[in-house]
Amino acid sequence: MASHEIETLTQALSRLPGLGPRSARRAVLHLLKKRETAFDPLLAALASVRERLATCGICGNVDTSDPCAICADPRRDARALCVVEEVSDLWALDRARLFPGRFHVLGGRLSALEGIRPEDLAIDSLIRRIAAGGIDEVVLAMNATLEGQTTAHFIAERIEGYPVRVTQLAHGLPVGGELDYLDEGTLAQALRARRPVA
Amino acid sequence: MASHEIETLTQALSRLPGLGPRSARRAVLHLLKKRETAFDPLLAALASVRERLATCGICGNVDTSDPCAICADPRRDARALCVVEEVSDLWALDRARLFPGRFHVLGGRLSALEGIRPEDLAIDSLIRRIAAGGIDEVVLAMNATLEGQTTAHFIAERIEGYPVRVTQLAHGLPVGGELDYLDEGTLAQALRARRPVA
Ligand SMILES: [Zn+2]
Ligand SMILES: [Zn+2]
Repeated sequence: MASHEIETLTQALSRLPGLGPRSARRAVLHLLKKRETAFDPLLAALASVRERLATCGICGNVDTSDPCAICADPRRDARALCVVEEVSDLWALDRARLFPGRFHVLGGRLSALEGIRPEDLAIDSLIRRIAAGGIDEVVLAMNATLEGQTTAHFIAERIEGYPVRVTQLAHGLPVGGELDYLDEGTLAQALRARRPVA
Repeated sequence: MASHEIETLTQALSRLPGLGPRSARRAVLHLLKKRETAFDPLLAALASVRERLATCGICGNVDTSDPCAICADPRRDARALCVVEEVSDLWALDRARLFPGRFHVLGGRLSALEGIRPEDLAIDSLIRRIAAGGIDEVVLAMNATLEGQTTAHFIAERIEGYPVRVTQLAHGLPVGGELDYLDEGTLAQALRARRPVA
């Protein structure tokens, strides 16, 4: 039916997260119909990003410049450093403009199961940033998973001795979370971390 | 946060049907992470299709060649012609290899509301194909909407006098359709078109 090229395009799109074969086909049809308003802008945007794509040599963020826009922004608070597992975590935290400081992307989490060791993560470069000085607080923003927390503890130990405050994200009930829909682990954590009513 | 170029790419993706801002962002992150296995193949596929993209001068299909792969395929039954509203309908019918003949894309449907008149659709070129001979059957595969059926009737009248059999898709219960979930119009149509049990 569709030509080899169109089939290849449909397959490339269908491998994106959130798109299946069906929606990829609809997307391709949309592109073919709206050549000037959809196809050309998408193609130009992809080519433009691809051309400039770079991994930030300071923090590990992916951006179209190195250093990335965050590391290059003088309005950012250079004294606060937020450590995350993945670039997607950095984006999630930065999207809501929740954190005014800078970031450090580990590129994963320690995992015995997957054979991911400390030297596979950007931990040495994190220590070098801290050792260089000028940082007051390191926020360990790992996922609330066993591996994420193992990673956070490992890093906290490596940081001991440097004159920085080490904090981590609070764990507990998600906003809007109803008790009887939450898993036991979250409930236990919320109970352990209970605070006096103000 | 993300650079201007990445923001532009996210927006271009989020305008595809089936993708919202959130999934577009996930798709972009996926592309940035998997540069060799996702980004480059998608960019190459888009560029390759865009370069060759053509509207078939015979049937109105969109393909990477003109005539399109269907019109150029000698194994297709040239005596059967299926008329559809949109390229997406052609693809839907052809995907399942349901129709062994060729197609004709009208490019829409008659609509008083939207001001779409016969001369706005590829009806004259349809009549020319039929008048040229060699076609035994014309299948009117319009949507089962008021406008689709109005268009089908209009075309059926224009074809009168040519030595072709004019048929249209059956209307009735969709396969797997449960009576009490179907709208009245479908039920009425299924009842009107009822057939003796074989
Ligand atoms: Zn950076
Ligand atoms: Zn064609």
